[in-house]
Order: sequence, then structure tokens, then C-alpha cells
Amino acid sequence: MNSFIYDIPTKVYFGPNQLNHLGEELQKYGKRVLLVYGGGSIKKSGLYDKVVKYIKESNLELFELSGIEPNPRIESVRKGAKMCKDLNIDMLLAVGGGSTLDATKWISAGACVDFDPWDFFSKRSEIKKALPIVTILTLAATGSEMNSGGVISNLETNEKIGRQDYHLLPKVSFLDPTLTYSVSAYQTACGSADIMSHIMETYFDLEKDLYMLDTVMEGLMKTVIKYTKIALQEPDNYEARANLMWASSWAINGFIDGGKTQQWSCHAMEHELSAFYDITHGLGLAILTPRWMKYCLDDTTVSRYVQFGVNVFGIDENKDPYEIANEAIAKLEDFFFNDLKLEDTLTKLKIDETYFNQMAQKACKNSSIKGFKELKPTDVENIYKMCL
Amino acid sequence: MNSFIYDIPTKVYFGPNQLNHLGEELQKYGKRVLLVYGGGSIKKSGLYDKVVKYIKESNLELFELSGIEPNPRIESVRKGAKMCKDLNIDMLLAVGGGSTLDATKWISAGACVDFDPWDFFSKRSEIKKALPIVTILTLAATGSEMNSGGVISNLETNEKIGRQDYHLLPKVSFLDPTLTYSVSAYQTACGSADIMSHIMETYFDLEKDLYMLDTVMEGLMKTVIKYTKIALQEPDNYEARANLMWASSWAINGFIDGGKTQQWSCHAMEHELSAFYDITHGLGLAILTPRWMKYCLDDTTVSRYVQFGVNVFGIDENKDPYEIANEAIAKLEDFFFNDLKLEDTLTKLKIDETYFNQMAQKACKNSSIKGFKELKPTDVENIYKMCL
Repeated sequence: MNSFIYDIPTKVYFGPNQLNHLGEELQKYGKRVLLVYGGGSIKKSGLYDKVVKYIKESNLELFELSGIEPNPRIESVRKGAKMCKDLNIDMLLAVGGGSTLDATKWISAGACVDFDPWDFFSKRSEIKKALPIVTILTLAATGSEMNSGGVISNLETNEKIGRQDYHLLPKVSFLDPTLTYSVSAYQTACGSADIMSHIMETYFDLEKDLYMLDTVMEGLMKTVIKYTKIALQEPDNYEARANLMWASSWAINGFIDGGKTQQWSCHAMEHELSAFYDITHGLGLAILTPRWMKYCLDDTTVSRYVQFGVNVFGIDENKDPYEIANEAIAKLEDFFFNDLKLEDTLTKLKIDETYFNQMAQKACKNSSIKGFKELKPTDVENIYKMCL
Repeated sequence: MNSFIYDIPTKVYFGPNQLNHLGEELQKYGKRVLLVYGGGSIKKSGLYDKVVKYIKESNLELFELSGIEPNPRIESVRKGAKMCKDLNIDMLLAVGGGSTLDATKWISAGACVDFDPWDFFSKRSEIKKALPIVTILTLAATGSEMNSGGVISNLETNEKIGRQDYHLLPKVSFLDPTLTYSVSAYQTACGSADIMSHIMETYFDLEKDLYMLDTVMEGLMKTVIKYTKIALQEPDNYEARANLMWASSWAINGFIDGGKTQQWSCHAMEHELSAFYDITHGLGLAILTPRWMKYCLDDTTVSRYVQFGVNVFGIDENKDPYEIANEAIAKLEDFFFNDLKLEDTLTKLKIDETYFNQMAQKACKNSSIKGFKELKPTDVENIYKMCL
């Protein structure tokens, strides 16, 4: 069992009608705010107007950067970092989902350096400081609102790379489940697949862990399974949206890993899919995860599948271990592809094996796919092929 | 479902061999450290020498206050607050269990005011600031290492009162499970009864909660039940001590309540027992909790007992609700009084009904015992009598 440091100081306002605290929180960090957001959805929903109102009432100066892409690009980071320098921005306010938050994190770091922000990824350049970040979340998925990581895509080099740094942790995040009522069924499903994957990437591991954290992870997975189905039926069910939103934060803020050397195999494989084909991250994870589970199932790993099947899906623990493992994989597929109605093959996304070899090489180069079951490029290529 | 603010910035170093970070953490807060501890156990174990070595190596100036009592007294708080002022102390380092940590918290607040620190309790005087606190925990029980509360006793007035304030949150806590290897079976048992009670006081409630937090609470309770038995058999079992230690922090740092109006009936009743008879807090809670459960069981509350019995003790959900409820209470009694070998009546502690009426009045005056089942002084007196 490893030692670890727990250090998650992000303050969270959870619930509707908490935005009236926005001004007082922003005022702690200066005067000049750069509001970062994606497309026009926050204008349609009225959220944009509310945010602007609170900022102006607090006598803060507002600047804006819109148009952050899903799978946010390094070009947006460069643009935002330049704006921060040119405009003497004091703090960043990200309003949106994980893509907007991730871009904002790297803008905040890019604003404090003289080199190209892509160096943070290509050269692992050191992050000595970053501008303070406040977030308003509109999608339960990436957990970016309460962690120090962010993923950026570079379409020129076909790379999508994630990196964490303590300086990127949001100071304050506003989590209002009602803001996710308008999230489409497809995006809700992809978000939940992402949350499930964050937990599973941590859970599937052979190290001796804290049992307490296993119970938390199993509870989080049961929460996601139970409430995604409800949210798809009733998009404005507060209980469902609230459970998904808070689960998304705790799935990947560092609490559940408790010092583990984590694998994150499916994320490494999915990042190449998104980098080459710009598909939705959660969809790629849903397609990959059950195949990865099948590929990794053997005598050394089966016990973890059994614990998962029994404690998350309630499968009878007296069955044969491999029977439990396969039933658990089938139940997960049923959740992703029937309940969540996500596409179940890469073929359906018009992805063929053209780049599988190249993607597999990159997946193993950009990330370490070790531990639970070490995957070499040939293994990754095989898993991609299982997804056709 | 209530809105809430989550704000727990305490940094935790978890695991053995983390104390080498002590100096760098203390240096963030100044030069002059007041080391606060209880009896001589940290000298016997060698922890005292290690702490002093790290402090001296970091060129910090060390001052000491020892002799903090179990159920810490206001006199110690007064003495510590005066020392802080006289010696220009910059920060406090608490080494010990919940009593030492609680006393340290109120010393840190008392050091910043001109009035008597008991006014914080008797007059609810405002806390505008407090000296920074670092803790090294030696007992898994109160959760004081990661929360903003502390309980102080005044034997002159027979009062034991708890209060929370954000300024009292430790900046950093060192949680080394090996430091609890030497905790006696009795103290281990009382600590676990305290942890169980913290979770149950939050869990037993009729508000519509976040299901996600229910699963976390059920996991924490299963963790405490599973690992206390192991720790009693094998005091130096790392896995057991680690699970109990991390569970103790999360049972009462605010995460699991998610905005609930909490009841804390058993704590209110127990504080009077400790105030009048100076008994161990966890023991009082173990004796009171099953009786309180029996007293509160009725048609409005039974569903919560069923959820508890099924999810924590694995009782068959197809049984009659009252049968499940009573079986759950019996299993809890079995855990406290057989597995943990705690005394099962107040009579065995030589406590009779002399002060029950007075204690019941005070319990309802100092705390609000509402919500799950509102308890008036007559009810509290009845529950005390059930403990004879």
C-alpha cells in the first residue's frame, strides 16, 4: 500500500442559486477577469447574462474569449494566453464543460510564460505559476472542475495530451446541477461514460489498495449507472443530475486513487482516437473499455473483475469467477450500448484500421500503459481491432 | 435536497515516513512553533524525539505545552492561549489524538483575542482569526485532523461543548497509521465507536439525500466494522490501521453530509455524560447509539434502518422492515459489545439516574436534537434510562 499526499483545496458551491457568490469569490483575485467559454449554448440558456451581471455588479472588468472547441486545441490556448498578457488579466473564469475548463487551465499557465504553451506538452516545460481559475460547470463528465489536469489537442501533430499540475487546480467551482438539464441525451451519455471510465481506470489495478476507497469507487459506479438512466428519461430530474455532477468531481479529483500507480490504459488509447478522428472522448471510452476488459482478463486479474461484478452489478458471488467476470463485462456493455444508446463499434463511426498501428505506437509513447496488465503497441492494436 | 459549500483545504500526508515533510510545511507559517501534546506516550514511542529533530533541523524555534487532558479542559486552552501571546508564537503543532487537536484549535483562536476563550462557547463570541495549525495524529477517532470543530469541557459548569469554525481547520495533517499500532484495544474500540457514530449521526435522517453520499457512508461503516476487528486481533496490521485512520477523517470532515441539516442526537446526549462523569466519548456513544436507534424506530423512520441493515450488515432485503431494523440494531450491539468488548450499560460505569433529568435538560439546551426524530428532555431522559 503506497503513501500519498491528499491536497484538493478547491472550494465548491454546489446547488442552484449559488451564483450570487460569484462576485465575492472573483474579487479575491483582482479586478480583470477573462471569461472563457465555448459555443453559444451559455448565451441561449441565459447563463451568460447572469454571469455578466454578477461580474459587473462586483465592479470587475470583463474580457471574453469564446469559441473553445470540444477537444480543445492548442491554438485556443495560445490565443487565450496572449490575451491574458496583452490585457493584464488577473484571473480566469471558465464557463462550460471539461473542454472549456481544460483550455482555461492551460491558458492560465501559458499566460505566465514567454514560450509557446505547447512546450508544456512536447517538452514538459515546468509550470512555476498560473493565473487563478474559477469555474462554472455545465456538463458532468471530466472532473476538471476539481482537479489539476487538462487535455489539449494538437491537430497539426495528431496529438492529444493530458498533463496535471497543482497550479492548475481551480480555486473555486460552481456546480449547479440545473445547468445540466439542457445537456442532450448523447452528451449526457458520453459524460457518464467518461465518469465511469475515470473510476474504472483507477479501480482496475492489482495493487493492494485501501478497502475504504474500493467501497467509495463501487458506490460512485453504482451512482453513475443508476442516475444516468434516470437523467436520460427525465433530463430535468434534479436528484439524477446532482448525483452525476458530484460523482464526476470525485471520480477524478485524486481522492479515490490514494497513492496508487494508476494505469489509465483506456484514456491513453482513446486520446489517440480523438487525436486522429476528433470523436467525442466519452464515446471512445465506452467503445474501448469493454474490449480492454476482455483483453486483460486472465488468472492474475480475474479477482478484480469478480469484486467489480459482485459489488457494482450485484452478480451472485458464488458463481465461477470467469462467469462473473464475463457477466460483468456484458452488463457494462449493456449499460453503455443499450441504456446509454452509444454506438458500439468504431466501424459505425467510420473508423477503420488505417492508423491503428500508428495510434498504438503513439498511445504507448505518450502514456505508460502498465500495471494492471502491461500493454505494448501490438496489444493496443489488437484492442483497437476488437472495436471494429 | 439542500445546496451546500464544500471547502476542506487541509493537506494530508498519509502513510509512514512522511514526517520528513514536517519542516517544510511548518516553515510556511513563521519561525516560532508551540508543540502541544498530552501525556508522555509520544515520548515513550519516540515520536517526540523525531518531531523535535525535524523542527530543529528546520531552524524553527520550539516551545512546548504538554498535559492536554482526554476531554480537554478550558483551563488548558487558557494556558495555551496565554503562552502563544507571551511567547509570540507563529503556529501550533498538535501531536496526539482528538483531545490534543481540539485543545490546540481553541488555543489557536484564543491566542488571537483579548477575552476569556470560554466566551467562544458561553457567549458564541466571534472568531475572526486563529494561528495556523499543523497536526500529527496518533489515534483514529474524532476526525479533528481534517475538520473545523473542537469540543472543550468546563468541569466548573459541568459543560462539554463543541463548536466549528473555518479558521480552526488544520493547514496540514500528518496521518501515519503506524503511529496507531500502540493504541490499546480499549482506545481502538472507543475510537471506532466514535467514527461509527459520526457516520450514523449523518446517515440517520429523513431528508432526501445524495444517493452517492449514502453509498460513501455505507462504505465507511463497512470499513470501520471490518477493520476494527482486525486491528483488535493484530494491532500492527497496517491495512487495518490505514483504513481506520482514513475513514476517521472522512467520517466527519463535512464531505458526507452534503448540506444536510444534521441531528447529532447521540453526541449531544453523550457530551452530557462526559461532562458529568468524564467517561470516554466513544464508550458513551457505543452505549447510547443502539438505545437511541430503538427509541426512534417507527413508521416514519423504519425505511432508513432497512437501508442501513441491508447495505451495511448484508441483511436480506426481503424480510419484514421491522425485522430488518431490529436485526440491524442487534448486529450493531454485537459489534460494539462483543467484537469491540465495550461495556454495554451505564450501570457498569457506576452511573445511575441521579443527574439524568439535569443532563437531559442540558442536552436539549446546548444542542438541537431534531429532525430524524425530535427529542425533548423527557425523551432524552428515557434513552438514558434504557442505558442502565
